[in-house]
Amino acid sequence: KTHFEIAVLPGDGIGVEVIAPTVRLLEQLASRSDSFTLGFKHCDAGALHYQKTGEALPDATMDSCRSADAILLGAMGWPELRYPDGTEIAPQLDLRTEFQLFAGVRPIRSIPGIPSALSDARGADIDFVLIRESVEGLFALRNEGVVIDDREARDTMVITRAICEQLFDFAFAYTRERKKAGTPGRLTCVDKANVFASLAFFRKIFDERHAGFSDIAVEHAYVDATALNMIKKPWAFDVMVTENMFGDILSDLGAGLMGGMGFAPSADIGINNAVFQPSHGSAPDIAGKGMANPTAAILSGAMMLEWLGTRYTNPAALAAGRQLRDAVDRAFQAGLAPYEIGGKDGTSAIADAVE
Amino acid sequence: KTHFEIAVLPGDGIGVEVIAPTVRLLEQLASRSDSFTLGFKHCDAGALHYQKTGEALPDATMDSCRSADAILLGAMGWPELRYPDGTEIAPQLDLRTEFQLFAGVRPIRSIPGIPSALSDARGADIDFVLIRESVEGLFALRNEGVVIDDREARDTMVITRAICEQLFDFAFAYTRERKKAGTPGRLTCVDKANVFASLAFFRKIFDERHAGFSDIAVEHAYVDATALNMIKKPWAFDVMVTENMFGDILSDLGAGLMGGMGFAPSADIGINNAVFQPSHGSAPDIAGKGMANPTAAILSGAMMLEWLGTRYTNPAALAAGRQLRDAVDRAFQAGLAPYEIGGKDGTSAIADAVE
Ligand SMILES: CC(C)[C@H](C(=O)O)[C@@H](O)C(=O)O
Ligand SMILES: CC(C)[C@H](C(=O)O)[C@@H](O)C(=O)O
Repeated sequence: KTHFEIAVLPGDGIGVEVIAPTVRLLEQLASRSDSFTLGFKHCDAGALHYQKTGEALPDATMDSCRSADAILLGAMGWPELRYPDGTEIAPQLDLRTEFQLFAGVRPIRSIPGIPSALSDARGADIDFVLIRESVEGLFALRNEGVVIDDREARDTMVITRAICEQLFDFAFAYTRERKKAGTPGRLTCVDKANVFASLAFFRKIFDERHAGFSDIAVEHAYVDATALNMIKKPWAFDVMVTENMFGDILSDLGAGLMGGMGFAPSADIGINNAVFQPSHGSAPDIAGKGMANPTAAILSGAMMLEWLGTRYTNPAALAAGRQLRDAVDRAFQAGLAPYEIGGKDGTSAIADAVE
Repeated sequence: KTHFEIAVLPGDGIGVEVIAPTVRLLEQLASRSDSFTLGFKHCDAGALHYQKTGEALPDATMDSCRSADAILLGAMGWPELRYPDGTEIAPQLDLRTEFQLFAGVRPIRSIPGIPSALSDARGADIDFVLIRESVEGLFALRNEGVVIDDREARDTMVITRAICEQLFDFAFAYTRERKKAGTPGRLTCVDKANVFASLAFFRKIFDERHAGFSDIAVEHAYVDATALNMIKKPWAFDVMVTENMFGDILSDLGAGLMGGMGFAPSADIGINNAVFQPSHGSAPDIAGKGMANPTAAILSGAMMLEWLGTRYTNPAALAAGRQLRDAVDRAFQAGLAPYEIGGKDGTSAIADAVE
């Protein structure tokens, strides 16, 4: 395959501001290559669209997402805007569920030139990937939580064999792929199997699936100890896989190690679809000021190209993705400093420096 | 009240090694005071006791705990030892449930002289308290998780008004008490109210209870953003209160900010009872080598004296607790370095330096 259709959902607030330069950079890479082309279709979605129309994720947008080769998303949600039942307008969660995007891939990598959050010099060598299961766990029945008589409330954590098998196979294959570039080839299962039946089941299936990937070393870790080790020796991790809620918490912690949410890209990957998006939210406080850090969005775009190139065996697209990531690294090495870390480089200064 | 009976449960592994010097230091403080005395009753409990006798928390121990003024615990659990159903032997969880110790108080404080984990100089100014709800949340039905047909597993998160009201009243009063020493008097409710009905309920009760503490400023934060901010600006927190599982993860992260689990004290407090224990586990890998860091245990002992002094209006006990904490600070300022942070000071070197 040489032509890729991308559904673009800029969403709310700074989502729009970081997606614009990302699309521009991706177009540029495609225009320089003879081996792949990209088509972009902008689609409505988000909390502000809900405010205008009563729909956060219109059918037309869902159709475009369904037929696209990949989905590029900005950020969605807005503080004062809620569904009538009080929950947040977060169509990104609906996309995960609708397309069964079980593998939330969140690379945690020190970007050269960005001062490490840690005092240990090895803070500059952080390079691991957190895979957050993204359709079940505590989120499985997120619309079915109950409050009984204003006296007690419940939510349910659900772990299924069906999703776990796909998740772990993905994570093992991902670890194996990374190993080709010289990483240790080690996958850590992060759970709380010592206390919860559901997470003991999670670990059990992890161990079962290991049988098909005996070239990959495995490790078991508790989620609390993992939070500690993400501070004490994050450079020692290769790939970790965990439950949805745990992954939500640990990936933000990981973003902190990178300098903030504006540096942290992500991909939500299923069998037939994938969404690429920066880990940050819509940031109403800085929206419209040109201050947003587009790095996470640009790196998400790079992940998208790498994923398309791998999935559809298009080496040029894969190479372009790596090139984009390297361009980000070079730009920061040359001394960029986003507002997010106390600098004065805004959205366009950063995007221009990456070009 | 001037005499306090302490039930001492050293437990497993390094639990025994760190409790011994802690009891010695507490005895010394009592012997130097005319205003309070301490009695210590050592009790069997833990995974190794379970191995010997088939009981992890014997009735006699429970009786001693029930009648004591406070409980001092070392560490419990042992990797290869499990209950027949495969779950961990963790009598500390049973104590929390049995005595309804809903308030897990975990101070996160930079100890002078211990190099900060963070590169920002303000890492030396970290001083906040995490209150982990410790009897319900995801742990409420921890023995009732189910696996259905080897196909699906479930656990349930339960939030009750009854516990929340007690928890938040405790947290507000605790924040108010701290404010007397010059802290901002701000309590942050950490949840995921944007997604889960149970945690929206948690937040709602928090807001209700605020009415009785209008001198305390409040803040709402999501657990994922809190993990990020514990890296980006932990010095900005005063007191935070959160659900059990979230608190488990965030408090280990907090221990990482302090230099490791060996520095992190804790208290589990209910209406009539309280357990004081270092946050670390039994650490079989270093047990018996004299390498364990007793700081967390000693600081837990200091918290115990402060709590007894406050609860029973014994200013001398309260002062002795503060004195012990200050002695720890002075010892580290003078240049102690535990194995945990790459140094060579073992259990007795540290305990001796504190005296
Ligand atoms: C906005 C929120 C519902 C979402 C989540 O919890 O998944 C976000 O935190 C994320 O990590 O993508
Ligand atoms: C040992 C374990 C069951 C326990 C917990 O999860 O509460 C521990 O991590 C803690 O924080 O006290």
